[in-house]
Amino acid sequence: MTTKPSKDLETFPNPQPGRDYTIRITIPEFTCLCPKTGQPDFATISLEYVPASLCVELKALKLYMWSFRDEGAFHEAVTNEMLNHIVSAIHPNFMRIRAEFNVRGGIYTTVIAEHKNPVWEAPDLINLP
Amino acid sequence: MTTKPSKDLETFPNPQPGRDYTIRITIPEFTCLCPKTGQPDFATISLEYVPASLCVELKALKLYMWSFRDEGAFHEAVTNEMLNHIVSAIHPNFMRIRAEFNVRGGIYTTVIAEHKNPVWEAPDLINLP
Amino acid sequence: MTTKPSKDLETFPNPQPGRDYTIRITIPEFTCLCPKTGQPDFATISLEYVPASLCVELKALKLYMWSFRDEGAFHEAVTNEMLNHIVSAIHPNFMRIRAEFNVRGGIYTTVIAEHKNPVWEAPDLINLP
Amino acid sequence: MTTKPSKDLETFPNPQPGRDYTIRITIPEFTCLCPKTGQPDFATISLEYVPASLCVELKALKLYMWSFRDEGAFHEAVTNEMLNHIVSAIHPNFMRIRAEFNVRGGIYTTVIAEHKNPVWEAPDLINLP
Amino acid sequence: MTTKPSKDLETFPNPQPGRDYTIRITIPEFTCLCPKTGQPDFATISLEYVPASLCVELKALKLYMWSFRDEGAFHEAVTNEMLNHIVSAIHPNFMRIRAEFNVRGGIYTTVIAEHKNPVWEAPDLINLP
Amino acid sequence: MTTKPSKDLETFPNPQPGRDYTIRITIPEFTCLCPKTGQPDFATISLEYVPASLCVELKALKLYMWSFRDEGAFHEAVTNEMLNHIVSAIHPNFMRIRAEFNVRGGIYTTVIAEHKNPVWEAPDLINLP
Amino acid sequence: MTTKPSKDLETFPNPQPGRDYTIRITIPEFTCLCPKTGQPDFATISLEYVPASLCVELKALKLYMWSFRDEGAFHEAVTNEMLNHIVSAIHPNFMRIRAEFNVRGGIYTTVIAEHKNPVWEAPDLINLP
Amino acid sequence: MTTKPSKDLETFPNPQPGRDYTIRITIPEFTCLCPKTGQPDFATISLEYVPASLCVELKALKLYMWSFRDEGAFHEAVTNEMLNHIVSAIHPNFMRIRAEFNVRGGIYTTVIAEHKNPVWEAPDLINLP
Amino acid sequence: MTTKPSKDLETFPNPQPGRDYTIRITIPEFTCLCPKTGQPDFATISLEYVPASLCVELKALKLYMWSFRDEGAFHEAVTNEMLNHIVSAIHPNFMRIRAEFNVRGGIYTTVIAEHKNPVWEAPDLINLP
Amino acid sequence: MTTKPSKDLETFPNPQPGRDYTIRITIPEFTCLCPKTGQPDFATISLEYVPASLCVELKALKLYMWSFRDEGAFHEAVTNEMLNHIVSAIHPNFMRIRAEFNVRGGIYTTVIAEHKNPVWEAPDLINLP
Ligand SMILES: [Ca+2]
Ligand SMILES: [Ca+2]
Ligand SMILES: [Ca+2]
Ligand SMILES: [Ca+2]
Ligand SMILES: [Ca+2]
Ligand SMILES: [Ca+2]
Ligand SMILES: [Ca+2]
Ligand SMILES: [Ca+2]
Ligand SMILES: [Ca+2]
Ligand SMILES: [Ca+2]
Ligand SMILES: [Ca+2]
Ligand SMILES: [Ca+2]
Ligand SMILES: [Ca+2]
Ligand SMILES: [Ca+2]
Ligand SMILES: [Ca+2]
Ligand SMILES: [Ca+2]
Repeated sequence: MTTKPSKDLETFPNPQPGRDYTIRITIPEFTCLCPKTGQPDFATISLEYVPASLCVELKALKLYMWSFRDEGAFHEAVTNEMLNHIVSAIHPNFMRIRAEFNVRGGIYTTVIAEHKNPVWEAPDLINLP
Repeated sequence: MTTKPSKDLETFPNPQPGRDYTIRITIPEFTCLCPKTGQPDFATISLEYVPASLCVELKALKLYMWSFRDEGAFHEAVTNEMLNHIVSAIHPNFMRIRAEFNVRGGIYTTVIAEHKNPVWEAPDLINLP
Repeated sequence: MTTKPSKDLETFPNPQPGRDYTIRITIPEFTCLCPKTGQPDFATISLEYVPASLCVELKALKLYMWSFRDEGAFHEAVTNEMLNHIVSAIHPNFMRIRAEFNVRGGIYTTVIAEHKNPVWEAPDLINLP
Repeated sequence: MTTKPSKDLETFPNPQPGRDYTIRITIPEFTCLCPKTGQPDFATISLEYVPASLCVELKALKLYMWSFRDEGAFHEAVTNEMLNHIVSAIHPNFMRIRAEFNVRGGIYTTVIAEHKNPVWEAPDLINLP
Repeated sequence: MTTKPSKDLETFPNPQPGRDYTIRITIPEFTCLCPKTGQPDFATISLEYVPASLCVELKALKLYMWSFRDEGAFHEAVTNEMLNHIVSAIHPNFMRIRAEFNVRGGIYTTVIAEHKNPVWEAPDLINLP
Repeated sequence: MTTKPSKDLETFPNPQPGRDYTIRITIPEFTCLCPKTGQPDFATISLEYVPASLCVELKALKLYMWSFRDEGAFHEAVTNEMLNHIVSAIHPNFMRIRAEFNVRGGIYTTVIAEHKNPVWEAPDLINLP
Repeated sequence: MTTKPSKDLETFPNPQPGRDYTIRITIPEFTCLCPKTGQPDFATISLEYVPASLCVELKALKLYMWSFRDEGAFHEAVTNEMLNHIVSAIHPNFMRIRAEFNVRGGIYTTVIAEHKNPVWEAPDLINLP
Repeated sequence: MTTKPSKDLETFPNPQPGRDYTIRITIPEFTCLCPKTGQPDFATISLEYVPASLCVELKALKLYMWSFRDEGAFHEAVTNEMLNHIVSAIHPNFMRIRAEFNVRGGIYTTVIAEHKNPVWEAPDLINLP
Repeated sequence: MTTKPSKDLETFPNPQPGRDYTIRITIPEFTCLCPKTGQPDFATISLEYVPASLCVELKALKLYMWSFRDEGAFHEAVTNEMLNHIVSAIHPNFMRIRAEFNVRGGIYTTVIAEHKNPVWEAPDLINLP
Repeated sequence: MTTKPSKDLETFPNPQPGRDYTIRITIPEFTCLCPKTGQPDFATISLEYVPASLCVELKALKLYMWSFRDEGAFHEAVTNEMLNHIVSAIHPNFMRIRAEFNVRGGIYTTVIAEHKNPVWEAPDLINLP
């Protein structure tokens, strides 16, 4: 695996494919460029997913996030684009991406998008007291 | 776009119109005048919405918030008025506004109002463990 | 309106009567007397309600809270009494009162009571991801 | 009422018997002895309940907690024992006890047990936005 | 019981077998080796379970966690392995394990897996207001 | 000792008169009346002192704080008055009072006053790294 | 006293003129206009001072802060201007002003200025352990 | 070493006797009895010291703290008594004890006492920026 | 002024040149490249300074921070380089820079460097109680 | 450089040798064995130092911390040993080590040791208001 920014997402086989379980990943070091002004934008990206047969490799995910460093990206569009891209790489049962952008002009913006495999049904969440 | 207070709300096309996703915006810098005393009031305004075909432009939203700076505004009325105004501009599937006013006379007040497009149904929320 | 403690609760017409919305009020400055020892008790009182045709006026609510300053009041009883009193003044669709008393003898006590208009049904809560 | 440790739980009549409401009590000053080593254990005990015809008197509850000071008590057993004891004193519609023990050997342990009167049904929880 | 790392999990009988109640355990001192680099990894492990006829002994659980100290362990695999192991020792009605790994390369990862006895049904969670 | 509000401050002999040591007391339950509006004010009162031959009794201090409940009191004046009063009762080597008033009109006010016995010299404070 | 924005600062006599004591005031509701862009700026203003013969009246201070609402003000200049203005009104022994501006362009700015009466000497600060 | 409450304080030789360094110990699990009412009191005890030739053994310190469990103890007296006792066991260059008692009657009390070997001088504290 | 990354630092005249006062600036959005691995590094940069005749313009400072986005930079060297650069632009009486880098390999690193004009003397800091 | 635990500490030349500046490093992932029980201990190690001609390389410092993983280590001794070892590698003007051990038996312990080059004098710390 290279250590350069890359749109390729490496994967590995889910080690417990018969069980619905949750993987949560938080990346506080996302930066891209504002397409209007060309100036840097900063965000924290969070993923949570239920893997099907594949998991996303963490180092590759880091290089993928790095690949936006010199790209212009609108908040709403880039969040959906990331979701589309990662979903097409690992076809999870469920994936949610949350992009929390740093304040600009006194305004805080967060965009959350999710994908569900239509044939997968989320198990009932057990909330113990 | 001007940089003066304005009741006009600029919009842009939703970049992922086929997906229900969430946009959250927090504006801690809202100020208006108390209609009883004429003195300044301060509040934090939070929006969350699921766009239909349009999104609200952030800089225009900031100028819209600015437009209340010299207006008298009752807590309950202004929250509903904002909701009515923004909904009429972008016709979202769902929008909720939360106005958290600063303490006055030892009393903290928050008003929350929401609009749902009657033909839109919120997807079941998936809560992973 | 006087600025003396008062059991009278002033009201005003709900400015958006066709919409179920939430008003939350927190009053950290409630004090009454312990009916057993005669010593001062302190509490934070929180209300949340969905107005019907009337809202409760904030300054009158403050004077109402003040009216307990020289009264003896058991925790469980005074919380229910406040709820009964305010409900009879504004007939809300829903009201919940939470009274969080300061620690006494190493024990923290909170009492929460609520009233629902039996012909009103709470709208389904939309929880966006 | 004595001010000695006591297994007796004084009660008083519920002042609003026709309404389901919540009483929450937190006691951060519970201590007993570890039955294996004889050394002191410390915990925070929290109760929440919906009274039926009786409420538990706070000072008596404090003396009851005091009564464990010189007793050996396993985490799982003592939490259930307390619940059984208090339920038999006031027959609440619902009661939950949470015992959060201090760290031992780098391990934090909490035990939560609850009792529901089988003929009582919890009202639907109204969550306002 | 020895005080050496051990894969054996001691158990004891559930002291209140007729009641569904919750035991929560947090172990902030888990360390293993990264199977790729051989370097130490650190995590906080949390368990929550509803016991059937057996509970897991806390000191044995600590020695079990210790047994990973010199083993290589992938995040996703070790979380599922622990769950499988502890479930096979105490056959709980329900168990959830959460492994929160320390940040590596600017990325925070958490894995959550759970097991439910298929013939056990979680009681409705009572949420008091 | 009575349990009524009282300007009398009970004292007891300092149990370690040959050593300069610190006693800190915080009373979050102070309330008086605003002398301009007659409405209740609330504050947290903190004392720190180095006793000479006398210490102030805690329950008497509580009754002393209670004695302001129905008095009008300006922020700056009442803080100095309390200091003068307690100093004249126990003649400490040093005493500092901090009165942190609740917000009014969006303004937070704190007044801090202190007294030093002119023949007493504070020992050098040892700050360990 | 009027309730309009005003550059006049009302004062009152120091109630304890023979003692050096501290008055701290925090005003989280300051807003002015950016002199470059005309857009609103927001800041929290904190004062601490040792009065000489005069104290500043709190309501007048609030109206003074209000008077900047429609004025353009550079961060560094306005902080010094406020200090100059308030010092000339009450001639304190010491005054410090801290202006903490809200984030702009990802940059947080705070300006702190202070005035000392040259013939006044600060008493040694007693730090008890 | 026994595992029973004990007034004996075991010691061990300072492993780096030629260097002034700091040992800080916090014990949040102190409990004794109120000598007035006989009811349990709770406190957090903190020590910081610069050892001379001896250090205090941690397990013995724990048993020492345990020895107060059934003793009546006034706040001011017990803090000084502990200091006297531990100082006589290890003769440190410097020791400070802080006893932070749980709230009683709405009043929080902390007592801090310290001992310095008169022939020892604290090194200047280096505060790096 | 351009809105491109730039090593030029614009300045403006100090509006209160006769007074020593403090300007604090925090920039949480600094990113550069690791000179060993070429991968992005992230840091929060804080400045505090006492201006002489010049202040640094905030927008230019932001563009200056942006200019490191594509440069390799060792932690210790870049902090000193920034200090040297800004000092040579505004010749402040005093300046301190703090660079707090994000965690790498489980290690958190912060570098702090400062410059003082040798003929300037810091005024005694007045600490009010 | 290997990636195995190692007692060797790599160094690099101080990039700004003519200036006293601060380097702070925090390593929350230290683990060793208790020499009494053989069980794992955990601690957070913090260093702060003023370099002379050499700085300590971060990755080597990490491997050095790793080298204690299978060693028995008393709290007081290991802190002093680390200080001695790192000082002998880079001969800093000043170094302080703080070892904050995880709670054992309800007792929290921290050890802080420091070294100063006797011919180096710490510059006066400038504290801006
Ligand atoms: Ca951030
Ligand atoms: Ca749960
Ligand atoms: Ca606010
Ligand atoms: Ca309170
Ligand atoms: Ca929501
Ligand atoms: Ca609610
Ligand atoms: Ca609940
Ligand atoms: Ca308060
Ligand atoms: Ca200290
Ligand atoms: Ca603010
Ligand atoms: Ca102090
Ligand atoms: Ca505690
Ligand atoms: Ca320091
Ligand atoms: Ca950061
Ligand atoms: Ca100060
Ligand atoms: Ca930790």
